[in-house]
Amino acid sequence: MSTTTAPQAPKRGLEDVVAGESSICYIDGMKGVLAYRGIDIHELADHSTFEETCYLLWHGTLPKQQELDDLRRKLALERKMDPAIYEMMRKYPKHALPMEVLRTVVSALSFYDPDENNNDHDANVRKSLRLTSQIAMIVAAYDRIRKGKEVVEPDQTLSHAGNFLWMLNGEKPSKTADKALDIALILHADHELNASTFAARVIAATLSDVHSAITGAIGALKGPLHGGANEAVMRILFSIDKQKKDAVEFVKQMLAEKKKVPGFGHRVYHTEDPRATHLRKMSEDLGKSSGNPKWFDMSRAIELYLNNVNKDKKLNANVDFYSASTYTTLGIDIDLFTPIFAVSRISGWTAHVIEQLDDNRLIRPRADYVGPKYPATYVPMEQRH
Amino acid sequence: MSTTTAPQAPKRGLEDVVAGESSICYIDGMKGVLAYRGIDIHELADHSTFEETCYLLWHGTLPKQQELDDLRRKLALERKMDPAIYEMMRKYPKHALPMEVLRTVVSALSFYDPDENNNDHDANVRKSLRLTSQIAMIVAAYDRIRKGKEVVEPDQTLSHAGNFLWMLNGEKPSKTADKALDIALILHADHELNASTFAARVIAATLSDVHSAITGAIGALKGPLHGGANEAVMRILFSIDKQKKDAVEFVKQMLAEKKKVPGFGHRVYHTEDPRATHLRKMSEDLGKSSGNPKWFDMSRAIELYLNNVNKDKKLNANVDFYSASTYTTLGIDIDLFTPIFAVSRISGWTAHVIEQLDDNRLIRPRADYVGPKYPATYVPMEQRH
Repeated sequence: MSTTTAPQAPKRGLEDVVAGESSICYIDGMKGVLAYRGIDIHELADHSTFEETCYLLWHGTLPKQQELDDLRRKLALERKMDPAIYEMMRKYPKHALPMEVLRTVVSALSFYDPDENNNDHDANVRKSLRLTSQIAMIVAAYDRIRKGKEVVEPDQTLSHAGNFLWMLNGEKPSKTADKALDIALILHADHELNASTFAARVIAATLSDVHSAITGAIGALKGPLHGGANEAVMRILFSIDKQKKDAVEFVKQMLAEKKKVPGFGHRVYHTEDPRATHLRKMSEDLGKSSGNPKWFDMSRAIELYLNNVNKDKKLNANVDFYSASTYTTLGIDIDLFTPIFAVSRISGWTAHVIEQLDDNRLIRPRADYVGPKYPATYVPMEQRH
Repeated sequence: MSTTTAPQAPKRGLEDVVAGESSICYIDGMKGVLAYRGIDIHELADHSTFEETCYLLWHGTLPKQQELDDLRRKLALERKMDPAIYEMMRKYPKHALPMEVLRTVVSALSFYDPDENNNDHDANVRKSLRLTSQIAMIVAAYDRIRKGKEVVEPDQTLSHAGNFLWMLNGEKPSKTADKALDIALILHADHELNASTFAARVIAATLSDVHSAITGAIGALKGPLHGGANEAVMRILFSIDKQKKDAVEFVKQMLAEKKKVPGFGHRVYHTEDPRATHLRKMSEDLGKSSGNPKWFDMSRAIELYLNNVNKDKKLNANVDFYSASTYTTLGIDIDLFTPIFAVSRISGWTAHVIEQLDDNRLIRPRADYVGPKYPATYVPMEQRH
């Protein structure tokens, strides 16, 4: 029995609890609908760009041509980094994980931010823009630093996705690669009160700053139950390939051992995750155009098997399942999958932080106390046995 | 009208929503009761030490003598820092706020942690112990670094509170100061699902690591609605002193200008915050023993006035009100108040992270969607006017 004064039954994981209002992201988990500011994700994936999606998330409407040009120009101009930041990153132990480094550097960026002590709406829009450019640069730069390579200077003429690939690989990306990553960034940009976004809002709601909120969000995204799932998917595909196993047999064996297959199922969707629809197609197209359809074929076989393995409940692929084969076919290292998630989600995180601060209330729930009955005795040391 | 599939009315700020079970902290907001593991905070403030309180929070019971000795020894042994960390801190711009630095350095400490990639219960107890020692060292060391002073080597023979004051001031603390800070650390050690602890649990619940959770918690504590309140109290006391005003007249004027007086009222307590009871006495005692009762006298006059200003609802001092005058009388700079809160709260944060991970469920609420009606049209660029 609870002895707190809080009136409600506990909601483990706050499942289905509505934590507040938001006008950013619409999800219908039963119908498999995801929309930013009311616009379906399929429309955005087919017609928009990551830059336009950022505008939509931050400002609530699609930009006119001049507004979009302006945002593109500003994002490109923010492709710069205080040399102290790169110097700091070069001193980190080379075994430091990209997500640990990203979390640390984003925290440090607050010292160098021209709006450091300004937490108003306009300053936070500027910080959102700045962090969007900076996070992509940090992820690319640290990957090169840990591999003993030179950091690549940004190219202001490229798209956000294109510049990221350029800074990562030191080669101008193909149109196909640029477009594929651009769509992946659109698809991952926001997802309502997922754990990292919710963490960002909890932090911002103390009237703390954007850098604190985003640093916390990166820490949450780092967890295997959140950003880490596509890494886990790819490790399985690699194992299947290395052991020359049949993909379906491998997964059957996992289920027999009561292991959860990553990349399937979702807290919110009870049908296909609409992002999976696009990533499946992207994975297939990239497999064909690169002449290496192996990862797609393997993934598709697993998906078809898992779709039908449960009679009562269909197991559906989620956003993580086909992003694994997509990123690998793009030549991206497995431990950059989650950092790339952050390269995209920074747009949604910051939109949520701005929305939170525009109409703030401290987020402070209660716990159902189940510990030793109050008042427990403070037993003096000499009587403790 | 909500168009999401989530079933509940929104709970702004999750006020009174029970987010889960916990056996760490018991609060009765109506009766003004706070207890750790069932033991009343008054008992702990009168008889315990911060080290013993850490044991209680992490392990659930009071330690036997040998267990307490062991914890003290381990905490003392963890008073060490990789030289790379101090070197990093020396390179930060000197205007960097202590809370920004603490957030960044705690994030970086994960690269140097011997349990870096170990997230099991025992590893997390070790990390809790390590971070408790390290956070105190970082706060003290950065204060000296920014003032151009040498970092003071830790003293393993001192208490946790005593070593912090030693590393901060480079002088062995008086017994009074040591004891006063020790009690302040006990009083601030935990407070159920306050915003920073809740942020830590949201982050940990993705199965992310302790450093991610604590980095997020520090970011939340940084906010003026959370850790920043005693700073705001002290700024008012300084203003009153500088302007040679009468304290009560000053506060009357604030109320007339519809300003909120910091240090009064609490989301959870509807009577006196039990921590205020101790801090009031401590502030008074320190004022007397130091021969400088000014800050206490000013605070007490404000409190007596505010207690009775509302006919229908008594305005009560909270934990922040008397910690301001206490810390100032101890000679602590105003922008170290929140970092010192972290020096204490790390014990509770880590207890909650361990509890979360011992029986984890992803924390992922829903939002009530109030944005543009779905499906909103993706208007092509040439048709946007």
